[in-house]
Amino acid sequence: MKEFLGDDFLLDTDMARRLYHRYAQSMPIVDYHCHLSVQEIAQDRRFTDMAELWLSGDHYKWRLMRAAGVDERFITGDAPGEEKFAQWAGTLERAVGNPLYHWSHLELRRYFGYDGILNRRTAGEVWRLCSEKLEQQQISARSLISRSGVTLLCTTDDPADDLRWHRLIREDESFSVQVLPAFRPDAAMSWEKEDFASYLLRLGEAAESKIDSFAALKRALEKRADYFDRAGCRTADLSVDRACFTPAGEEELEKIFARVSAGGGLLPGDREKIQSAFILLLSDICARRGWVMQLHYGCLRGADSRRSRLLGADTGFDCMGAGTQSHELAQLLDRLSQAGTLGKLVLYSLLPGENAGIDSVIGSFQGKASIQHGSAWWFNDHIRGIRDHLTGLASQGLLGNFIGMLTDSRSFLSYVRHEYFRRLLCGLIGQWAEAGECPGDEAYLGGLVQDICYNNAVRYFGFALEETAGGRENVHGCHE
Amino acid sequence: MKEFLGDDFLLDTDMARRLYHRYAQSMPIVDYHCHLSVQEIAQDRRFTDMAELWLSGDHYKWRLMRAAGVDERFITGDAPGEEKFAQWAGTLERAVGNPLYHWSHLELRRYFGYDGILNRRTAGEVWRLCSEKLEQQQISARSLISRSGVTLLCTTDDPADDLRWHRLIREDESFSVQVLPAFRPDAAMSWEKEDFASYLLRLGEAAESKIDSFAALKRALEKRADYFDRAGCRTADLSVDRACFTPAGEEELEKIFARVSAGGGLLPGDREKIQSAFILLLSDICARRGWVMQLHYGCLRGADSRRSRLLGADTGFDCMGAGTQSHELAQLLDRLSQAGTLGKLVLYSLLPGENAGIDSVIGSFQGKASIQHGSAWWFNDHIRGIRDHLTGLASQGLLGNFIGMLTDSRSFLSYVRHEYFRRLLCGLIGQWAEAGECPGDEAYLGGLVQDICYNNAVRYFGFALEETAGGRENVHGCHE
Amino acid sequence: MKEFLGDDFLLDTDMARRLYHRYAQSMPIVDYHCHLSVQEIAQDRRFTDMAELWLSGDHYKWRLMRAAGVDERFITGDAPGEEKFAQWAGTLERAVGNPLYHWSHLELRRYFGYDGILNRRTAGEVWRLCSEKLEQQQISARSLISRSGVTLLCTTDDPADDLRWHRLIREDESFSVQVLPAFRPDAAMSWEKEDFASYLLRLGEAAESKIDSFAALKRALEKRADYFDRAGCRTADLSVDRACFTPAGEEELEKIFARVSAGGGLLPGDREKIQSAFILLLSDICARRGWVMQLHYGCLRGADSRRSRLLGADTGFDCMGAGTQSHELAQLLDRLSQAGTLGKLVLYSLLPGENAGIDSVIGSFQGKASIQHGSAWWFNDHIRGIRDHLTGLASQGLLGNFIGMLTDSRSFLSYVRHEYFRRLLCGLIGQWAEAGECPGDEAYLGGLVQDICYNNAVRYFGFALEETAGGRENVHGCHE
Repeated sequence: MKEFLGDDFLLDTDMARRLYHRYAQSMPIVDYHCHLSVQEIAQDRRFTDMAELWLSGDHYKWRLMRAAGVDERFITGDAPGEEKFAQWAGTLERAVGNPLYHWSHLELRRYFGYDGILNRRTAGEVWRLCSEKLEQQQISARSLISRSGVTLLCTTDDPADDLRWHRLIREDESFSVQVLPAFRPDAAMSWEKEDFASYLLRLGEAAESKIDSFAALKRALEKRADYFDRAGCRTADLSVDRACFTPAGEEELEKIFARVSAGGGLLPGDREKIQSAFILLLSDICARRGWVMQLHYGCLRGADSRRSRLLGADTGFDCMGAGTQSHELAQLLDRLSQAGTLGKLVLYSLLPGENAGIDSVIGSFQGKASIQHGSAWWFNDHIRGIRDHLTGLASQGLLGNFIGMLTDSRSFLSYVRHEYFRRLLCGLIGQWAEAGECPGDEAYLGGLVQDICYNNAVRYFGFALEETAGGRENVHGCHE
Repeated sequence: MKEFLGDDFLLDTDMARRLYHRYAQSMPIVDYHCHLSVQEIAQDRRFTDMAELWLSGDHYKWRLMRAAGVDERFITGDAPGEEKFAQWAGTLERAVGNPLYHWSHLELRRYFGYDGILNRRTAGEVWRLCSEKLEQQQISARSLISRSGVTLLCTTDDPADDLRWHRLIREDESFSVQVLPAFRPDAAMSWEKEDFASYLLRLGEAAESKIDSFAALKRALEKRADYFDRAGCRTADLSVDRACFTPAGEEELEKIFARVSAGGGLLPGDREKIQSAFILLLSDICARRGWVMQLHYGCLRGADSRRSRLLGADTGFDCMGAGTQSHELAQLLDRLSQAGTLGKLVLYSLLPGENAGIDSVIGSFQGKASIQHGSAWWFNDHIRGIRDHLTGLASQGLLGNFIGMLTDSRSFLSYVRHEYFRRLLCGLIGQWAEAGECPGDEAYLGGLVQDICYNNAVRYFGFALEETAGGRENVHGCHE
Repeated sequence: MKEFLGDDFLLDTDMARRLYHRYAQSMPIVDYHCHLSVQEIAQDRRFTDMAELWLSGDHYKWRLMRAAGVDERFITGDAPGEEKFAQWAGTLERAVGNPLYHWSHLELRRYFGYDGILNRRTAGEVWRLCSEKLEQQQISARSLISRSGVTLLCTTDDPADDLRWHRLIREDESFSVQVLPAFRPDAAMSWEKEDFASYLLRLGEAAESKIDSFAALKRALEKRADYFDRAGCRTADLSVDRACFTPAGEEELEKIFARVSAGGGLLPGDREKIQSAFILLLSDICARRGWVMQLHYGCLRGADSRRSRLLGADTGFDCMGAGTQSHELAQLLDRLSQAGTLGKLVLYSLLPGENAGIDSVIGSFQGKASIQHGSAWWFNDHIRGIRDHLTGLASQGLLGNFIGMLTDSRSFLSYVRHEYFRRLLCGLIGQWAEAGECPGDEAYLGGLVQDICYNNAVRYFGFALEETAGGRENVHGCHE
């Protein structure tokens, strides 16, 4: 029996162990999509205790605590941090097999040197140990990023953002990690929201223009995209309900915009038309600048409407949503292809049942376009989800060209997800070698692994980084 | 190579074996949903031969026999029992990898002490052996239940039922197993059926009221629910086409009811409205009484219309049906949440592709509500189906709080399905421990296993039973 | 670690190895569905180089090359064969885990005796080796078929085809493999195509009748079916978008036919009606002749419309398409059952998420009808796809009665896919035996394996072949 989270965690063959320890482990991280706060990086935020660092914003944990029947007072309420932590520890005890069980313990090991099990009994001891370390040691936003071996990360930014924190970081020579903005115009697409009018004012100010039409909105976004581009941006991102194309003429979109501007609401079907227009618009913005476009879809936000209204966005009430059938995705890509804007595109569906379809559709549009099936995401970011995604991708496409893992997280501790992914990747390829399904050529497979861990993403996004065969020791490479 | 169905069947790691043999095997069974006949339990039915016990009502077996090309005469027809048995034996020979292959042989081992293989060659010998045992030994409804270690079971009962057999069992001190009714108002929801009018008369008599409106129907059901509650009922169950909500006002439902009462048929969309109204109604009935609501969906009944008309319901012509998308399920739960009736709810979809979506939706509604993703069911009640369900549940939720297995069966021999489930559960957790994915702490994991096998269900349903750490020997615990 | 593609490739238990090497390996092949050119078989085509043999028509490979970013000049363009080959070798290097990685190397081993790894470095050496062998040895269409142990294959033929090549082969006593036509009336169903009118002329000539109505079209197809039947045909095949039934009266279909004949286009919904009418028609044609009907569905053709128009059909731009829900498939089968035409039917969906539903629906219609869930196909013809299909089939049906593998290929080298399938089949059953999930009875399991490899298909299609327990050595049986 292997030690829990020990050196050979998830590595069940000799080849897997060699691939991970000799090739994957020491590779740096390029985190091309996350939700870290650029301000906190710029200010090198420090944390007073584990409630602040671990529990204050992590809706993954909140969901599990609710599933355990924990009172909301200990989740988003005003209970003392240490009590919240104890409730989380008790929840975790029931969560065997859950990725949070693995992540939480990996984070305690890698960043706090705690090798035990967190549960109701040990909660107090762990709380004290971590508090001590937070106080005594340099555990800050930047130190966590650096120790994790990150060379570059892309935050997620609104087009109206002035990117001042990015500029500060860029000018600060004491911090060598590249922190780039990513262009995410979701707010500009949310015409149904109450604060859309005020958002347009803010965007208009940033773009130094008056936004009184859809055409003006598009011009403003183009202008901001140029601004982002000058700040080093290499990618844009959009979150839509479904990855399909509902056509609507310019005139129709202007009418909807005018109705909304006059205080009217959306009619049935409007939302689909607006989202489709934004997919097209963003693909054009990306194509013109050589950016990578990322498209997230399949999420239903705020499913529990009552609590979601009460607690706001990103508080744990989102879930998988409406599906996109393969022929609908194909129609969308065909539309972009016809428009000449299908370039570099990463597709992330939240519905794991769509994986095979995505791989098959992508295969029909490769060539001058270069499309990636993004890593298993959110509710799928667990052992089975990652294995399924990788196996599916390999079965229908070129695993060797995959751009690999991202954290997609709000937490500075989440870099352990790269370790998790890399172990699974090496575990999978190791099994193939063991079973005679691929050559047992360590150097060849190790090269593929390093490309998937790092080099492919560097190349795909066109980041100003050297490709590497690793060697740099990060926290995962030297977790003593 | 392991012995077929031997002691370590499905237990491929050392930890799995320890978890099963030391913790799971001797736990009692609480069977919170089955289709056993309460009359047969009350009368302690005995069986003359294996055709009667095994083949007379088991449409799972009938389907396989039809797939083998067996003539209907040997299935539901008038062929002699021994010939039917021989045909079943021949079918089984082709069914390697099928759960019926495992269940049938487990039943022969656990209840008849037959350790060989049933096939065309051995059919006669097995027939004689079992007939002998049925004649000589006390193999009766009650003895099978008792020997299986069952402490409590819930039958499935119509609200119009007078529960007299339940009363008889309760008053019979010679039988210590609790046999509770479960409230299943499917007939009251089937307004399209020819016998709906006569059903309403029967229900009206039971409720001592005239049912001449939807409002009256609801009142009658409420009254019967009180009656069931006094008889110890702790759960209600409903089977609908899809788990979504099609709203309809009271007035509209009354109009449909009036049209149906006047001999008219349903219009397109009526069925969805009626089913939605019944989901809401039943959730309210459950919430007021602290009952657990169970919702089964995704089944198409009587797919082969011709033979289904000929042979009646539950004769093997049902299959997976229309799907429920995640956002539709979310809308249903949100509707119940708004109505304040979302309490304890177990969701069972027949479509395995919906598992991940269910787990994600459930996660958005936990808290005061406590929702369970019911065990792999019917066409999914096999090795892969159970593993998939458990893995999915663990990946997105709290496996440690899962209420575990039920039989959902019409047969007194089906308790081997609990053994099947428990071996798979221990096998899965054992693999995790072996791979370093969970702590190798036998006592901790054993406790989780025992909770999932028994204690969680006792607690969730609020049954009047002690939680236990096992120790009681049942047929699976002492199969010598 | 096992040797790459070595003797025990995919065989990870002792039982698996025994089942494969003693039972499966030497069984002959009956290839009941492929796209080989009957003319090339009749003329015993030879190949000048690997570009011609391997790359000239294989859109599976083209898709991967496009995913690798290879310029179209090296794919379907005018680049020299050796350069195309080098590009393919470079692509393959990134395709670890892809079935093409396995197939390509298996083909090099089995037909060319090359045991190394094909990659950029070895491309030239492999090119020269294969060219030599193509020149020196008898590597021709017929020799590849014979060496692979094929006893019978069914090509895919248009009803208008005069089957002269089939006749030639039948009369040629130097070639003992049976080459039968299969009746595939897709063109007769494609009323929306530009060349439909000229196709009708051609079909009319073949049937010696004027086709000026849907009724006349049906009569012509019936007549051609008789012609095919006399030529030994045992099966018909149809490819439709979805496996559901949209009813339309004869009169309505005649109107559509008339409109199309007059140069008009299809209206929304027409395509579904025509396809439904053809499913019904073909099921009737098959039922009357005792043929097996094969139904392929779930494919979207020419997803990338621009390149698809440019390069034509079957050039790598197809993908998974619209789904068929289980209740829709059930309605289709029920319709055929009512029409009395549901006989022998093989269903192939391109959407792997539909597998469980298909298995459950099929189970409701077995009896006099005998329905098979066709082998994992096209985008699913890989390790996971085949395992999933087999596991699902076993879980809900009778694996022992499965008719097994087909190649569905345009290449004479694709018979390695039978080896691939057989290894996976033996691997799966071997694992069951190892885990105690089935009896460790080698002779019994070996018999099942041989039936699935060969005998079941012979029996199901009613081919004029002996059932066999193997023994004949083919290329896979004697690969040195």
